[in-house]
Amino acid sequence: MSENSKKRVIIIGSGLVGSLCACFMAQRGYQVEVYEKRGDIRAGKEIRGRSINLALSHRGRNALRLVGLEEEILQAAIPMEGRLLHTTSGELKSVLYDPSFNQCIFSVGRNHLNKKLLEATQKFSNIELYFEHTLTGCDFDNGTVSLLKLSLFSLKTSEESQRSADFIIGADGAYSKLRLSMQQVPQFQYSQQYIEHGYLELCIPAKRSHLMEPNHLHIWPRGTFMMIALPNQDSSWTVTLFMPFTIFEKLTDKAEILNFFKDTFPDTLDLLGREHIVETFLNTKPSQLISIKCSPYHVGSKFMIIGDAAHAVVPFYGQGMNAGFEDCVFLNDLLDKNKDDFELTIKDYSKLRLKNTHGISDLSMYNYLEMRDLVNTVGFRVRKSLDHFLYRIFPSTWIPLYNSVSFSTMEYQECIENRKWQDKVLRQVFIAIGIFLALFIYFIGLKIIP
Amino acid sequence: MSENSKKRVIIIGSGLVGSLCACFMAQRGYQVEVYEKRGDIRAGKEIRGRSINLALSHRGRNALRLVGLEEEILQAAIPMEGRLLHTTSGELKSVLYDPSFNQCIFSVGRNHLNKKLLEATQKFSNIELYFEHTLTGCDFDNGTVSLLKLSLFSLKTSEESQRSADFIIGADGAYSKLRLSMQQVPQFQYSQQYIEHGYLELCIPAKRSHLMEPNHLHIWPRGTFMMIALPNQDSSWTVTLFMPFTIFEKLTDKAEILNFFKDTFPDTLDLLGREHIVETFLNTKPSQLISIKCSPYHVGSKFMIIGDAAHAVVPFYGQGMNAGFEDCVFLNDLLDKNKDDFELTIKDYSKLRLKNTHGISDLSMYNYLEMRDLVNTVGFRVRKSLDHFLYRIFPSTWIPLYNSVSFSTMEYQECIENRKWQDKVLRQVFIAIGIFLALFIYFIGLKIIP
Repeated sequence: MSENSKKRVIIIGSGLVGSLCACFMAQRGYQVEVYEKRGDIRAGKEIRGRSINLALSHRGRNALRLVGLEEEILQAAIPMEGRLLHTTSGELKSVLYDPSFNQCIFSVGRNHLNKKLLEATQKFSNIELYFEHTLTGCDFDNGTVSLLKLSLFSLKTSEESQRSADFIIGADGAYSKLRLSMQQVPQFQYSQQYIEHGYLELCIPAKRSHLMEPNHLHIWPRGTFMMIALPNQDSSWTVTLFMPFTIFEKLTDKAEILNFFKDTFPDTLDLLGREHIVETFLNTKPSQLISIKCSPYHVGSKFMIIGDAAHAVVPFYGQGMNAGFEDCVFLNDLLDKNKDDFELTIKDYSKLRLKNTHGISDLSMYNYLEMRDLVNTVGFRVRKSLDHFLYRIFPSTWIPLYNSVSFSTMEYQECIENRKWQDKVLRQVFIAIGIFLALFIYFIGLKIIP
Repeated sequence: MSENSKKRVIIIGSGLVGSLCACFMAQRGYQVEVYEKRGDIRAGKEIRGRSINLALSHRGRNALRLVGLEEEILQAAIPMEGRLLHTTSGELKSVLYDPSFNQCIFSVGRNHLNKKLLEATQKFSNIELYFEHTLTGCDFDNGTVSLLKLSLFSLKTSEESQRSADFIIGADGAYSKLRLSMQQVPQFQYSQQYIEHGYLELCIPAKRSHLMEPNHLHIWPRGTFMMIALPNQDSSWTVTLFMPFTIFEKLTDKAEILNFFKDTFPDTLDLLGREHIVETFLNTKPSQLISIKCSPYHVGSKFMIIGDAAHAVVPFYGQGMNAGFEDCVFLNDLLDKNKDDFELTIKDYSKLRLKNTHGISDLSMYNYLEMRDLVNTVGFRVRKSLDHFLYRIFPSTWIPLYNSVSFSTMEYQECIENRKWQDKVLRQVFIAIGIFLALFIYFIGLKIIP
């Protein structure tokens, strides 16, 4: 019996990050218990209240590869080579993500991916899954968690139990119960920010999907708000409208809703169907978007949080899941480096991961502006062309921001610093060109006017 | 029976702000229930874990006056006319708070003040106090709270009860349970920031108080940290050392502690007593300092938070309690204005109070720098003299920042804007003087060198 097989790990949450993390921990030989408050999604219905599809990019793929799942997931994913911008007058403009090397991101179904990850956990004999178990408390000193088993289908009173482990990982999402407990520990810095925009999901049915240009992430950028569409495996498209709550609140009857669509997204009226639009608006409350930053990511020597529990971001860079998956890789690498010493690892994790996750949080906020507004500007397109021109000449030096974030495992913080360096270089080059031209014109002038 | 006597208000917390708020609400004629998790401090020991004395200034006095308590409280308070700075070499320098009009702030004992406020509640037949009742949950839709009665002295199981009211006010401090529930409501913005400095309280006994210059707030400013002393009613002084945790952590044995005091606060060794210093350091963990900002201050139509629960600040402006007391006045005024309509009032309260409480939060953070470092600089003292010179000439226009915060009820936000305006005016005047002098010297030069 190896040393690692005596080590016991509890993971709270069997969502995307929780179940992937379980695989990583099981690969290391630990005894893993996963507690999930929901029922088993493999048996039941779709998870509600979360976005239906996600953009899988390099970091996420890298993590899936390490647990042997990348190929299987990509088979059911739909490549998106670029953004397809829809103007109000119905014109289309394709902006490739990577005109230099044709890399693309992939649309994957949240539910499908979660099911595959849960199935993967079942290949490990050292993972036990417990559904319908809610975290009700933590004892940070003793390394125990209290869990409430919800007896949904019986008349028995719910049972509370205590579980202890050497290592307890909260992967219980943006509204993490574990984080809520950590928040009450001194020196835990925490901020939650709801943005003033919400979102509503609509659907273009498969029967009308031939009208949508395939292999793109469609965007209807409208300055202060935007609509996007991602393809689903069943040929339908999930359409998400991101918009200030103040505008949502004004659209309260059929006429107003349809007029709003006629004015701002006229080409989608037939795609989505008028009835579907009106019905969705009248029966659904737009969902909230929360951004969470906290520090550190651990308490004591046994407890830590990863994924959305540690750093929920707004969805505009498509990096929420990718960053969460990368957390698992990062944690796994640190356990290698520290020879499975948990205490050392979680301290290192907090110290080294923080600036990167805070970085992607800021980038995600910024990218909403880019997607809904900047993509429409000439300056943005010229800069993108210039970046890719230089990228082709200096592929290892001049990596454009979107590429470093989505198509590399460069640390997020480094992506940001890299972009700042590029900005600085370009500024200096432009100044030099300006001075050169001024001098050139001056000497020409001297020649012409003796 | 008046309309108001049918209205039921629940206040969570019978600390300084909770008990004062109860008086205000009872004055309006409402039926008030106050639930406090601790026991009755009038019967028992001191409250531990909180600073012992507080600086009462204009806003706090104003609130106490409105419930008829100002005089009684001031009788047991000790006026502090200015800061007395102690240099490392033992020199003393007095810097008056208000050299223009001799206004002062007052040192009051937290416990004494709290007892007086609790006694004041007992003069109202429409206030009921419940001690040892902890808030365990809120139902924001139905306006009910769940409370757990702790049966400390019996073997009975603790009883949980539900209470409903028309208006529920959380005055349960920086670690507010009510706020924790509100935090889980969409669109509740929240941040908690622990600063990297902690504090330790020491005591100069009454028998040595003749060695301390009276009627001052003593400060030992040392750049990155500081020690302060406030007088107590029993002639002793409470001394508080504010310092980075990293320095506290290094002082682990007697020799180190005494050497540290010899180097940085040599004049306090005899005042505090070497044994008392060493004993306090070795047996006490330095306390944390937390700053909390959130928005809004209400949820739904019935729940709101005030005082530290809404805006815990670091203690360096001496405004935490004063701002909390002002909250009660502000709430009371709004209830007047809105004719006791709770729903309207709590919405107005959130909207109108926020920028001021966020303002005092920032000012409090800034004032740590001023107290521990800037007070030592020539620039600071020249500016203070200049401000007071102008204040005497234009008493209603040129109110220095400290005066507007501590000796007026000007809105905190206005205090900050006022200071920014003063900075701007001074800058322009200095530029004008500079230009004038330059021209003057130029023309003198023309005369001298023909």
